[in-house]
This record gives sequence, structure tokens and C-alpha cells, in this order.
Amino acid sequence: MNMINIKEYMQQLGVEARAASRLMARADTNARNQALLAIAAGIRRDKEALLAANRKDMDAARAAGMDAAMLDRLALSEKSIATMAEGLEQIATLADPIGEITDLKYRPSGIQIGKMRVPLGVIGIIYEARPNVTVDAAGLCIKSGNACVLRGGSEAIHCNQALAALVKEGLRTAGLPEAAVQVVETTDRAAVGELITMKEYVDVIVPRGGKGLIERISSEARIPVIKHLDGNCHVYVDDDADEAKALRILENAKTQRLGTCNTAESLLVARSVASAMLPKLAAMLTSKGIEIRGCAETQKLVPQAKAATEEDYYTEYLAAIISCKVVDGLDEAIEHINKYSSQHTEAIVTENYTKARRFLREVDSSSVMVNASTRFADGFEYGLGAEIGISTDKIHARGPVGLEGLTSQKYVVLGDGHVRG
Amino acid sequence: MNMINIKEYMQQLGVEARAASRLMARADTNARNQALLAIAAGIRRDKEALLAANRKDMDAARAAGMDAAMLDRLALSEKSIATMAEGLEQIATLADPIGEITDLKYRPSGIQIGKMRVPLGVIGIIYEARPNVTVDAAGLCIKSGNACVLRGGSEAIHCNQALAALVKEGLRTAGLPEAAVQVVETTDRAAVGELITMKEYVDVIVPRGGKGLIERISSEARIPVIKHLDGNCHVYVDDDADEAKALRILENAKTQRLGTCNTAESLLVARSVASAMLPKLAAMLTSKGIEIRGCAETQKLVPQAKAATEEDYYTEYLAAIISCKVVDGLDEAIEHINKYSSQHTEAIVTENYTKARRFLREVDSSSVMVNASTRFADGFEYGLGAEIGISTDKIHARGPVGLEGLTSQKYVVLGDGHVRG
Repeated sequence: MNMINIKEYMQQLGVEARAASRLMARADTNARNQALLAIAAGIRRDKEALLAANRKDMDAARAAGMDAAMLDRLALSEKSIATMAEGLEQIATLADPIGEITDLKYRPSGIQIGKMRVPLGVIGIIYEARPNVTVDAAGLCIKSGNACVLRGGSEAIHCNQALAALVKEGLRTAGLPEAAVQVVETTDRAAVGELITMKEYVDVIVPRGGKGLIERISSEARIPVIKHLDGNCHVYVDDDADEAKALRILENAKTQRLGTCNTAESLLVARSVASAMLPKLAAMLTSKGIEIRGCAETQKLVPQAKAATEEDYYTEYLAAIISCKVVDGLDEAIEHINKYSSQHTEAIVTENYTKARRFLREVDSSSVMVNASTRFADGFEYGLGAEIGISTDKIHARGPVGLEGLTSQKYVVLGDGHVRG
Repeated sequence: MNMINIKEYMQQLGVEARAASRLMARADTNARNQALLAIAAGIRRDKEALLAANRKDMDAARAAGMDAAMLDRLALSEKSIATMAEGLEQIATLADPIGEITDLKYRPSGIQIGKMRVPLGVIGIIYEARPNVTVDAAGLCIKSGNACVLRGGSEAIHCNQALAALVKEGLRTAGLPEAAVQVVETTDRAAVGELITMKEYVDVIVPRGGKGLIERISSEARIPVIKHLDGNCHVYVDDDADEAKALRILENAKTQRLGTCNTAESLLVARSVASAMLPKLAAMLTSKGIEIRGCAETQKLVPQAKAATEEDYYTEYLAAIISCKVVDGLDEAIEHINKYSSQHTEAIVTENYTKARRFLREVDSSSVMVNASTRFADGFEYGLGAEIGISTDKIHARGPVGLEGLTSQKYVVLGDGHVRG
């Protein structure tokens, strides 16, 4: 397609998505759940065809010299296909967020006023290689009464088209418009440029992928973006920390998985307990193969620690490295976190009630934790059922974004012929 | 100031606002309320000085040939000064939104998870002539634990500086940072350009004023904008409308005040009741001096109606004009509204339960009403206590934006050494 055709093509998707979003917003709970279950059934039934489509993508990616980590994200297996289907079945069991009316109260004027939860409308989702995002995102949008336009990585095009066909079949089975979920069929990058600027047809953009993709989309979008940039998460071991808890939490937060956004990337230790606890914490990290980059005080207590630069404290390593700093106490810890963190997830280890309360209130991150591992920052762990991403923005949705993040609230006013005085 | 100096000046405001926002976020409820009351007392005390500052602005505005409507908005009076002070006192009586923890529940993993309401951080507010916005906006930001940078119209500069001094005095009295409320001292437009792009220092922009200002700011901002563009509000008189209620509601919605954003600008009437009701509705409008622009069917029933163009149905007149269309019934009414309205406020007049429910669910506007005047769409009428504006956006805040719209929610996780399995 040339540029003009791409513009026309995307506008057409937009028109159809907007029309479908109206039908989705009024579709009943049962129809939306039926669609989810039908898609899940289709995925299980067409397992072999999906694996075949994925092999085409994998072959092309290997030929193009894609690295092992990307190939890993692109790959489907019998297990990952079953997981996609289960994900949809789980979303079907969640309570319907749409139409919920809350806070309905009478006002002195006699009107009754409340809020009704409604879909956002049309969600544009832009992501990289992982084909499971196609199914997860479609499932969350269908459940929340939205339409969506999905633009997956060009590497996964065959697989995404096969999944899109199953999604459309499921929508049809449930009597819902097929255009409620549309997969962009061109791999041309100009399609993304259109998607993120079609204000009339798209209400919000959710980019998922590497920081480069997300920064580019945020800066070019003319539509609100729900995004997650970095996960530079901190564990602060307070003066009043329980040593066993500190060891257990830090081990889990840093070493359970190195490459997730809720992995701890920086350790802060209060000076009064540093000489007692830091060597043990460091020994645990070293035994797990984690490189420590610390301040001068850290280096005195931990001979194996390298020197940390200013840049280290800003860094989300996603690797077997952690930065470390000895701090005065709670005040310096909070100040350090609010300066260097990416406002994702931070944890304090303390037995002190007042300091726990202050940490919760004063740390300006999307998740703040007391005596728990940062690894818990996740839609499933929080009971949201599924997540479309983790937002490090401050407006609309912060932290794991589940169904509610794909909705908004409008005011409903009930009267009996009331007029304003 | 030259461009470089303006950039430096605005960056400095930003740095100070960010630092102040940290202190405001942790300031206790009492200190924030004390500041509001101290500012109110200062305003009452310095009434004469404020009137004098306003006279300077008025003289300059008259000399510059400002029109009567703008002069009216710029003018202060003893009464409007008292109203400003009362507004602050009312905000002080509202419940503190900050720190509220909701939905705190245990998860199977053993962690307890909930949401805590927190300030957004730094709010940039850009507005035109009205000096009362300086006080209202400062009051809402102080109460909600935010810092703000206010950029009022250059016409009101003397008055805004006088008010800013009183705000700073009030903050000081309560032991809060003066930089929590900063008024941009330069009238150079480049300052706005800086304000709406300083991502590091400003979390959200609230533009208030004419459509031109708001469109320009929305398209140039690199920071999320909470905005209100148009108020093209509809009243739909259904087949099952009560005639007396229809007359009363339309009269109030259209004629109580012509220039407000929640004034009705378009009337839809179901065909089955058009011949019975439309002439009476039209006679009422005509008797109030309202010009009617209608479809062909309207013109048959209402001889005094002019022909409406397609453009009329999109128009927010803010004047003694209303557009009118006869529609098939509920389906066409909803379709028409979702196409032409600005998603602000729409009302149905009906006695039919099922159609009332459908209108509430399917009309995609920030306020949807049954048997009540669109004029109720207002923060005070809704019980929010005050509003910083009415949002026609879909994400974050829809409809009247009060204290809650200046806050966000972060997740809090409480554990006892819990780690993820």
C-alpha cells in the first residue's frame, strides 16, 4: 500500500471500529462472555493451524536474523496456546464492569446523581512480537465493551491474522460486530502513525513493548496514551527492618525473574543497620549471581561491590545487576526514590508502624508496599484478573491496568421534571 | 524577558513547584484547610487593594479596546470578592480526598491490597481574563494536596499578582510552602509554551477559556490535558414524554442562561408527539426570544422556524438560537446525539422506564439525564463542592471536575514478609 492507501485503510478501520464500539457498549454481559468463550474454543480447536502460522513467522524471523530473546517471545507452543484460551475463559468469569452505577445520591435540588461505568470506546493497541497480546488485548476489550484496533509486530503477522480470524468468528457466534476487534493487516509503519493520530476514531492508545517504541509513540500520539515506561523498582531496608524478611523479600524481588518490570533494580539500606545487614544481603545476591554496584559506604561493607555511578541509580537493568546505596534513614530513602525511581513499584522493609505509614503516603509510585516483594505488582496478583499493561502515568490509571482501566465513568442524573433554580 | 530568560524562568517555577508538591502531598488536612481560611480572610481584609488593582487592569483593558463581555469577566466587585472568599471557606469544609484508602482486601497470596487516593502533583492552569479563577484554582489545588502554576490572562495581571500575594501569605500562615501556588509573572505567550511542555515539572494541564485557547493548548501540550471544548447539549422529548415536564425542562435548559456550557443548544422531538408538543415548545421558546432553526418537519409544524443546516446541528450557539429536529424515536435520537453532540450533557424527557434506561446507557456523553434540566451539569449542583472545569474528555475525569479529578489512586500492598511464589 502507498501512503494514501494506508491513510484510507486506517480511516476505514477507524470508522468501522467507532460504529462497532457503539454496539459493544450496549451489548449485554452474556453476549460479551459468549464471545470470549467461543474464541477460546476456536483457539483450542485450531491449535495446529496456529502452530503452522507461527512456524511461518518463526522461519521468516530466523531468516531475518532475529535474536534469541525476540524469537522466544514470538514462539507459540501447545502450552502457550492453552494459556491464551484459559486467559479468555478467566476474563469471562470476571464481573462485568460496564453499567455499574455507584454513589447514587439525592441532592438538595431533588435530583438524584450518580456515576455509571462505561467503556472508553475504541482502544488502539500497539505491540511487538508476542502473539498472545493479540488475544489478551482482544479479550479485555471485548469484556469491557470496547472496540479495539490491534497493531502487532510485523514479525508475528501470520499468527496474528490467524488469531484475528478466530476472534472474528467468536464475535460472530455471539452476535457481536466483527469490527469490534480489528487487526491491522499491513506491516507498514505508516499505519502506526495514522492510528495514533486518528482522534475521531480512537479514544486511547496502549503501547506495549520496549522503551524506544513507547517513547516514540508517546511523543507522536495526538490521542491519550496509557503507558508504562520503566520499572526501576526499589527495596528500602529500614532501621527497623526484620532481617529475615529483608533477605526473603530482596531475594524474591531481585532474583525471582531478572527481566520483568516489577523486579527490584536498586537496594537502599538504612545506615544504622547497614553494617549488620548489608553484608548478608550482598552475600545472598552474590550467591545468586547478581552484580552489586554501590556507593562508597556499600563498597566498604561489601568488598565485591563495584562503584555505582549517578547513572546506575536511574537504570532499570533487567539483568543480574543491582544498584545499592546506604542512606540516613526514611527521609533520605523517600527522597532518593522520588528522584531516581520510575514511579513503578517500591517496597519498604520495616517493623515500624509510623515509618510504614509515611512510606505509603509519601512515595510517589504506582505501587507502594510494606514488607512485600515488588514482584507482586501484577494484575493477576492484585486480583484484577488480567492486565493490559502497567501504567506509570499519573492520570486515569496507575499501576496494573485491568478492565477498569479500559473504562470511564459518566454522570447519570435522575429527575422528575426538575429544573435548576 | 527574552526567550531564553522565559525558559529559565519557567523551569525555575517548575523546579519549585515540584519541590512544593512533595511537601503538599504530605501536609496534613488541617494545615491545608488553615491555608484556605487564611487566604479567605486576607481577601476580605484587602478588599480595597484588590479593587484598586482591578481598576488598573480595567483601565488598561478599556484603553486597549476590550469588548464589554470581556470587561465584564475581568471586573471585580465587592460582591465577587466576597464570593471568592466564601468559595475558599466552602472548599475548607469539604472532606479531605487525600490518603483515603479503599478496597483493601486480602489476596490468596496473603498480601493485602488496596488503593490510596493521592494528589496528581503539579497542575498547570491556563485561563483568560477572570481573576476569580486564580482563587478557585488555588483553593482546589491546595485542598487536594497539589502544587499549581497559574497563568492567567495578561489583562488581569495586576489583580492576579495581588491575589497571588494573598495566597502566598495564607500558605505561609499555615506553614505550607509558598511555591505551592505560583502565578506566572510574565505576560509573554512563550511562557505558556514552556508550561505545557515541561513534562518533568508539570503533571497535568487544565486550560480554561474559549475554544480557540483550548484547542491550541491541546494540540501543543506534551502533558496530559483535562479540558472542556464544547457544550452542544441536547434535550430529547420522547414519544412517552410528559408535556408539562418537557416544557419546564426545555425552558430551563435553554433559556435560564444563554451563555453557559450546559445550556441546551438542540431540541429533538419524537415524531409521534411532534404535532401535539412541538408547537407548544416552540411557542414557549419564541416567547422567550429564542430563534428556532429546524428540519423540514419542524418548519411545517412551527411556521416561525428557519431552516437548519447540517452545521447548525454541530453548533454550540451560546446565544438565543436553538436547533430542532423531528426524529423517529429513541434510536434516531441516540444516533443523532452521538454523532452531533460534544459529549457534554444530554437529557431525555420520558415516562418510559425501558427507554430511560437505554438513554442512560447508550448516550456517550459526560452527563446523561432523565427528566432533568441540562443546567444541572455543574460541580456545585452535583455536590462536588467546587469545580475546576467540566471535562468532555473520556479518560481520567468526565463531566464536572472537582477535587477528585485533581487526584489519582496508587496501589498499596501490605505484607508480613510475603514473596511471590
